[in-house]
Amino acid sequence: MRFRLVPIALAASASLVIAQAAVAQVQEPIQPIIPPQQVNLGQVELGKKLFFDPRLSKSGFISCNSCHNLSMGGTDNIKTSIGDKWQQGPVNAPTVLNSSLNLAQFWDGRAADLKAQAGGPIANPGEMAFSHTLAIGILESIPAYVREFKQVFGKDKIDIDQVTLAIAEFEKTLVTPNSRFDQWLLGRKDAISADERAGYELFKTSGCVACHNGPAVGGNSYQKMGIVQPYKASSPAEGRSAVTGKEIDRFSFKVPTLRNVEMTYPYFHDGAADTLTQAVDVMGRLQLGKTFTKDENAKIVAFLKTLTGDQPSFMLPILPPSSDATPRPNPFK
Amino acid sequence: MRFRLVPIALAASASLVIAQAAVAQVQEPIQPIIPPQQVNLGQVELGKKLFFDPRLSKSGFISCNSCHNLSMGGTDNIKTSIGDKWQQGPVNAPTVLNSSLNLAQFWDGRAADLKAQAGGPIANPGEMAFSHTLAIGILESIPAYVREFKQVFGKDKIDIDQVTLAIAEFEKTLVTPNSRFDQWLLGRKDAISADERAGYELFKTSGCVACHNGPAVGGNSYQKMGIVQPYKASSPAEGRSAVTGKEIDRFSFKVPTLRNVEMTYPYFHDGAADTLTQAVDVMGRLQLGKTFTKDENAKIVAFLKTLTGDQPSFMLPILPPSSDATPRPNPFK
Repeated sequence: MRFRLVPIALAASASLVIAQAAVAQVQEPIQPIIPPQQVNLGQVELGKKLFFDPRLSKSGFISCNSCHNLSMGGTDNIKTSIGDKWQQGPVNAPTVLNSSLNLAQFWDGRAADLKAQAGGPIANPGEMAFSHTLAIGILESIPAYVREFKQVFGKDKIDIDQVTLAIAEFEKTLVTPNSRFDQWLLGRKDAISADERAGYELFKTSGCVACHNGPAVGGNSYQKMGIVQPYKASSPAEGRSAVTGKEIDRFSFKVPTLRNVEMTYPYFHDGAADTLTQAVDVMGRLQLGKTFTKDENAKIVAFLKTLTGDQPSFMLPILPPSSDATPRPNPFK
Repeated sequence: MRFRLVPIALAASASLVIAQAAVAQVQEPIQPIIPPQQVNLGQVELGKKLFFDPRLSKSGFISCNSCHNLSMGGTDNIKTSIGDKWQQGPVNAPTVLNSSLNLAQFWDGRAADLKAQAGGPIANPGEMAFSHTLAIGILESIPAYVREFKQVFGKDKIDIDQVTLAIAEFEKTLVTPNSRFDQWLLGRKDAISADERAGYELFKTSGCVACHNGPAVGGNSYQKMGIVQPYKASSPAEGRSAVTGKEIDRFSFKVPTLRNVEMTYPYFHDGAADTLTQAVDVMGRLQLGKTFTKDENAKIVAFLKTLTGDQPSFMLPILPPSSDATPRPNPFK
């Protein structure tokens, strides 16, 4: 008799677990990444070329992809980026992956959206060191670009709005759905291990989730770096106050997305943390007043690695050649 | 009666043309590019990742693809390349496209083959500025690379021979068949225009073809730069004599391939010629003692542009992330 009851009890228990999981899923503070709903394919293809085109820089050497390398999680994996003439950037290059989900762009949110962001590095003397006018001059000298812009935008003249719109539209496609964690959220209960699941529970119960939530697991608020203990930054960047002019916003930064965080090292706005273990430790102590044990830290890190999604998948774009009329780059002047 | 005879005469004439073309084709000094016959796909896929991986450089910023950009004809389109810490290279980066067809690698032929070449830039202080030992240390710290090397080479340890062999195998795939000129060679008589055909005839009758011949339209001999008139180079490179130690080889360089030459500007070992028009003019005067008219020059340039073949077509590789044990790059030290 006992042997017949056990399976029934187990089945009832399993049903209960499934029902709880279904309820829990609705309440999770992290939601699955949803592929982009409406994209303009002509703009995407044009923007992809522009994203890879170093002729938008003074040197002819640096493209968007140089620092937001789509082979490497949309980052350069360097503490702070290398700009024109090997200048050292002030902050760590944030990933371009899932950046369409951010409430604003740049660490201090000074660009309202991807389109506004895309024009920044081109004209930044420490990055691509060009000007919008010179970049447009390059593009207008390249017949295949002239035709493609006309095809996509229906105008005879190329302007910087078209350039940044196309790049932003391409960037909208750079979402990374289908991570193991999203598969778990969507019902595949064996998609993450017991340790990874335990790490997620710690991530929630410790308070990480207060800032790192939503589909991007971050990217949707500004927060002060160093709430419980001060953070000693290796960068002079002052954060959000540079935009708002308010003292209260000093050292407040956009919370970075944790999607693909396994690939986007080093961490923090100054790139000071080389590993996830370090980053979790610092965040715990400085933001939450909590010192994670080695085991807790490892479990949270294991959870974070389940956030790596499908990486951008496309053919390497082939760029149209310059014409005789195209101004040549002068990287050493 | 006459109207019946004309088509017959035309048909006979057409047969004659076809027969002549068949004979002519056999005798053409340029042969179509043949896709690689035997490639090791495991090595190719691994080599593709390594080709795109900037972690093989000291800075973590420069990969093979930085200067041999496969979006831009396998070159950087800069007079002389940018190396570690923005150092200026001594010569123009030759295209990696069809480089498997070269008799040797580098402008002075100092590397016997692609495998020997691939190790050069990694350890060159002016280029990637790393060492083979450090590069292997990076790769061995990345679990996904360790597994892939083991899968491909069947050994427990990664060594530099495996690295350069894989890169070379990938580079073997970077041939560009199916140019309009090759289509013409293979029998599609409308693949090139009358002007392009006339340019080809000029290319042959003027003597260009003495050096620029074979499937790569070059790449198969060393020749002195400045035979009839001396060439005033903007580069200190001495050419082949640096390898042979023979004074007679001074200023002798490997004849570059003209395949995809429309994309591989600027031209010559010092990158001094910005346009094909300039390059054809200089070559005519200095190598052949011939000043091409504007019309002749334009026709030769038109012919040269028919040599652009199918560009490498593959998915952008996604690189495995570093582990906690991977040494971090120090681009600013």
